[in-house]
Amino acid sequence: MYSVNVRDHVMIAHSLHGEVFGPAQRLHGATYVVDASFSGPRLDDDGLIVDIGRATTLLADVLARLNYRNLDDEDDFAGQNTSTEMLARVVADRLAERVGAGDLGEAARDLARITVTLHESHVAWAAYERAL
Amino acid sequence: MYSVNVRDHVMIAHSLHGEVFGPAQRLHGATYVVDASFSGPRLDDDGLIVDIGRATTLLADVLARLNYRNLDDEDDFAGQNTSTEMLARVVADRLAERVGAGDLGEAARDLARITVTLHESHVAWAAYERAL
Amino acid sequence: MYSVNVRDHVMIAHSLHGEVFGPAQRLHGATYVVDASFSGPRLDDDGLIVDIGRATTLLADVLARLNYRNLDDEDDFAGQNTSTEMLARVVADRLAERVGAGDLGEAARDLARITVTLHESHVAWAAYERAL
Amino acid sequence: MYSVNVRDHVMIAHSLHGEVFGPAQRLHGATYVVDASFSGPRLDDDGLIVDIGRATTLLADVLARLNYRNLDDEDDFAGQNTSTEMLARVVADRLAERVGAGDLGEAARDLARITVTLHESHVAWAAYERAL
Amino acid sequence: MYSVNVRDHVMIAHSLHGEVFGPAQRLHGATYVVDASFSGPRLDDDGLIVDIGRATTLLADVLARLNYRNLDDEDDFAGQNTSTEMLARVVADRLAERVGAGDLGEAARDLARITVTLHESHVAWAAYERAL
Amino acid sequence: MYSVNVRDHVMIAHSLHGEVFGPAQRLHGATYVVDASFSGPRLDDDGLIVDIGRATTLLADVLARLNYRNLDDEDDFAGQNTSTEMLARVVADRLAERVGAGDLGEAARDLARITVTLHESHVAWAAYERAL
Repeated sequence: MYSVNVRDHVMIAHSLHGEVFGPAQRLHGATYVVDASFSGPRLDDDGLIVDIGRATTLLADVLARLNYRNLDDEDDFAGQNTSTEMLARVVADRLAERVGAGDLGEAARDLARITVTLHESHVAWAAYERAL
Repeated sequence: MYSVNVRDHVMIAHSLHGEVFGPAQRLHGATYVVDASFSGPRLDDDGLIVDIGRATTLLADVLARLNYRNLDDEDDFAGQNTSTEMLARVVADRLAERVGAGDLGEAARDLARITVTLHESHVAWAAYERAL
Repeated sequence: MYSVNVRDHVMIAHSLHGEVFGPAQRLHGATYVVDASFSGPRLDDDGLIVDIGRATTLLADVLARLNYRNLDDEDDFAGQNTSTEMLARVVADRLAERVGAGDLGEAARDLARITVTLHESHVAWAAYERAL
Repeated sequence: MYSVNVRDHVMIAHSLHGEVFGPAQRLHGATYVVDASFSGPRLDDDGLIVDIGRATTLLADVLARLNYRNLDDEDDFAGQNTSTEMLARVVADRLAERVGAGDLGEAARDLARITVTLHESHVAWAAYERAL
Repeated sequence: MYSVNVRDHVMIAHSLHGEVFGPAQRLHGATYVVDASFSGPRLDDDGLIVDIGRATTLLADVLARLNYRNLDDEDDFAGQNTSTEMLARVVADRLAERVGAGDLGEAARDLARITVTLHESHVAWAAYERAL
Repeated sequence: MYSVNVRDHVMIAHSLHGEVFGPAQRLHGATYVVDASFSGPRLDDDGLIVDIGRATTLLADVLARLNYRNLDDEDDFAGQNTSTEMLARVVADRLAERVGAGDLGEAARDLARITVTLHESHVAWAAYERAL
């Protein structure tokens, strides 16, 4: 199995609801350094799983919908805690939709899996892995 | 599948027994930067796999039993080489026991897997992965 | 010249005022991974510039006043842009005040310089260096 | 499941063929920081999956065949794009062959899997995972 | 003194001339992860040393003249070894020229110093520091 | 001013004497990831400050005297606390002596400064800087 990973980041504000969060119930924020990993069993005719340039552009595109926002104000997340692991799934699902629509090219239809990791600091990160 | 990872470290002394170890047969030591990763299929009612704060506290707790010690003197490891991979299993097993005892809360009973990685330098690390 | 550096982090919300900031004029947030570096010409009687444990506690203490907050609501920053470089100075000045008050011990009075670096992502950071 | 990972690097020149590569069709180069990960279910009599020292030597050996070369001139890669993911497979296959030949010792015959990751920058990497 | 640092990268081919270089006399290549650091004594009216967005764009611009090239074919470097430290100076000088031309705005005229670091691997890097 | 930095590591045991050290008074150990930085104003005839290969070999050589040892048993450190900052000075002084003896070549006599940084974990490090 092959995989290709590209990295970018977003900077957001949010608050979290529930006693478990302690001071994180207050409005605060995070930089998420985001890794998107695309996996598949076969190289395409160019010798690639996905082109790193195209994957970088796609990730930047998907992250632009989150970047420099207060997630508490986003309709997409109404009534949900925007935890790091939940946001990892959101990014993975949006990337998967775009891959399905052909945004990484025809050959990317052979991709098997996508994993998205959000690093919220040097000591904590969360990930979501799904089939394509 | 979701996962959450927290990082901490320990500083220990030990020696290793067997010709393969060369100079590492002498008493020396290591900083292990330790990553503990908890994985599961479902978010709990707070939108979490595990709370990062609680996971951080649990990891620190488990590592306190190893930290600032000469592992050659620890009864738990008598007659065993405290290799990086073996210590990764020890940390994973101790975390698993604590998760089973409810130390990460009720919802953590849905967790599927734990992976512990010990980085012994910028160029070498070892991991142990187990079911929960 | 010797120096000792300790690392911690804070997660804050804020917005920035001025056209140059583009989308960062919206309320958003950041994780700052914070390095505090203490420099001086002489080791103390324990063979230290500063004790890493005490420096870690002091940095955590100073960061607690910023952590999990919306900096737009903090009186300390009214009318100012909480840019990364400005926040680096704030942290450095607060650490310097505490060092002056003896919070790192008597020997720390020989310290010459403090440098604080705030990493806002894997590709951008800012620092402030001052005499003690 | 246990794993042990060692890191090294190579510096190569190459060009890539196909419109998708844009400016990377020109002769250019890369540093690949290479992680080789060996996995298996059981520790050997020394308490190891593989000895980190031996694994480091083996990886350096395998990388020496690539290091400081223009891959466009290597017969092994004639007619192929030396993409990051393809080179990850090449390194994994060559390591696997050497493990099979006993170069990591008898016990390494219990190894289950090898994964090789090539980091081409701080924001892009590729991997290949295979059974042993 | 304040400073702001932004990071980007280039991928180049080159060879080095002189016995000291051993196998690096062959045509090979490198990824340079490039840090550009701008320092100055005073914040501007926006509370900045330089805007991170503008600095990022300027660095990308300057690196585009090097990226995806065989430096052995570049007239700018004829008769010179394109060592990591020499390339750090080239990037610093080109950034300095652009700062002087006002490409980071008027306030950037107060900048005191620029430092450029080129990381050629996880274990080696070089830097050049100059006044502005 | 130019500089070149190379990285290596050592694994040692030791104990520290004095109440301030708390549990670190027990015999324990550390991995130090060691950065050695050589600075000077002029490139030599090969376009270098120091050859990265030679600097790497020299650093490995100097570290071999510390590696895989219990520093409490070393005569060189009798009656001293082997704090991270003190060990940084030891490494810097030993490198300086070797540079003075010509081990980095004739041109290295123009070097102005050496800085050694010892990273004891992902959250703490110490450095020593001296003239050459």
